[in-house]
Amino acid sequence: MLTLLGLGLEPTDISLKGLELAKKADAVYLEKYTSIVLDETEIERVIGREIKHAYREDIEGSDGGDPLIIKEALDKDIVLLVVGTPLFATTHTELLIRAQELKIGINVLHNASIQSAMGCCGFNSYGFGKTVSIPFFIDNWRPYDFIKNIMTNFNNGLHTLCLLDIKINEPTIATLMGQENVRYNRFMTINEAISQIEEAADKFGNTELNNIKIVGIERLGQKTERFVYGTLSELKDKEYGPPLHSIIIPSAHGNAMEKECVERFFASR
Amino acid sequence: MLTLLGLGLEPTDISLKGLELAKKADAVYLEKYTSIVLDETEIERVIGREIKHAYREDIEGSDGGDPLIIKEALDKDIVLLVVGTPLFATTHTELLIRAQELKIGINVLHNASIQSAMGCCGFNSYGFGKTVSIPFFIDNWRPYDFIKNIMTNFNNGLHTLCLLDIKINEPTIATLMGQENVRYNRFMTINEAISQIEEAADKFGNTELNNIKIVGIERLGQKTERFVYGTLSELKDKEYGPPLHSIIIPSAHGNAMEKECVERFFASR
Repeated sequence: MLTLLGLGLEPTDISLKGLELAKKADAVYLEKYTSIVLDETEIERVIGREIKHAYREDIEGSDGGDPLIIKEALDKDIVLLVVGTPLFATTHTELLIRAQELKIGINVLHNASIQSAMGCCGFNSYGFGKTVSIPFFIDNWRPYDFIKNIMTNFNNGLHTLCLLDIKINEPTIATLMGQENVRYNRFMTINEAISQIEEAADKFGNTELNNIKIVGIERLGQKTERFVYGTLSELKDKEYGPPLHSIIIPSAHGNAMEKECVERFFASR
Repeated sequence: MLTLLGLGLEPTDISLKGLELAKKADAVYLEKYTSIVLDETEIERVIGREIKHAYREDIEGSDGGDPLIIKEALDKDIVLLVVGTPLFATTHTELLIRAQELKIGINVLHNASIQSAMGCCGFNSYGFGKTVSIPFFIDNWRPYDFIKNIMTNFNNGLHTLCLLDIKINEPTIATLMGQENVRYNRFMTINEAISQIEEAADKFGNTELNNIKIVGIERLGQKTERFVYGTLSELKDKEYGPPLHSIIIPSAHGNAMEKECVERFFASR
């Protein structure tokens, strides 16, 4: 049995149903590949038991064989805790497909994700177009495609939720070459995202975003949640707290109530 | 203090944090306006206390004055239970704005909504465009606009989540005229939605949807959840169970893995 258990946005967002299942499972893993890791000590306290770590290779496999999670679920009752909601990332969908092929029972517990919380600063959920991921640019790899999706939404009167890239347990080049054994986490900040948005917009000659106000979101749904509201250049050099950061780019035609609501929310924080 | 507490997709989806707040609040209301009502006895059992009902007028007000919920929150600790996640409907955003104007403390607990669960049948969350609502057609009021949004998504390679209309505690014409005191609930079925989609598509000459397979979803996230997969005409006359129903219309270019996943999921259920 494989249970994908959405944790929501902070540890006490776990559902009653989820808590029951986690308490009685044979093993509980925390997925540390697609999401930022919440306070693990707090998760263990809430669930009342030890949790193990599941990294990329435990979930996707690395040798062409089945990943650890699938192998264990063949004859055990395994819970995989996923920050936010499962089935948001294709990784989890692939796990379910493989489990079904092997006749492993499956169970999915949905929970709050940024997509169910994006109404947080006054924007109507119906007003959002396609969600966009902004990947880390590296030296020669600067995928600018996301700006096209942002501009399509913007010009069609739709808001864009921008999810900012994260790297978890990532090896260094030297680690890959066997010269050291260092792994690191990296979370894109609002500053970095704005800098990449500007570069991409510049590349395609998009100047429409220069003067509009966007929303920077820090740690959505957590106790320390914070919003900032301003133009790209106003927000680019501000100081922000710990991850996760996200950005909402309102449509070109955002309605008055939405704007009023945003202003009020931000004025009060 | 006003807490908007997302219940998720079934009563035991309530979060630990939410349960704590509901237990110690001065009063707990169940919002019976924007959402289908889950099993109330089960909600009361889970929370361990009596819950009151909040209808449209209690939430939006009816005499231009503040609604009941706001009046009570001025000096009491009020929890409003919302099926799914709050802030999905503008109704709740308006409540928050009014609470802020009156300096009432506010608290929002996000939870699973159909939007965080729409990856359920293998479609990637990133592949969805604007969410569409399909309103009940009545004699002279047949708003066809939703089909334009569906077709824009479809032709741009984006899936569409269609939310089907609901009417809760609705007065009859005779009730409005003071001749009787009857109120009713009505939930759009997959059958009715398909019939309206066909009528709207016909109106605008859209024939592209005729041969593609769509997904009908019954009671997403609940124990009795069920999916059906077929063309509009195949699904139109099938028998479905109790509400809530929803529909996903895959994009014109749906990728192979998504389609494989849908087929597998449906084949197995």
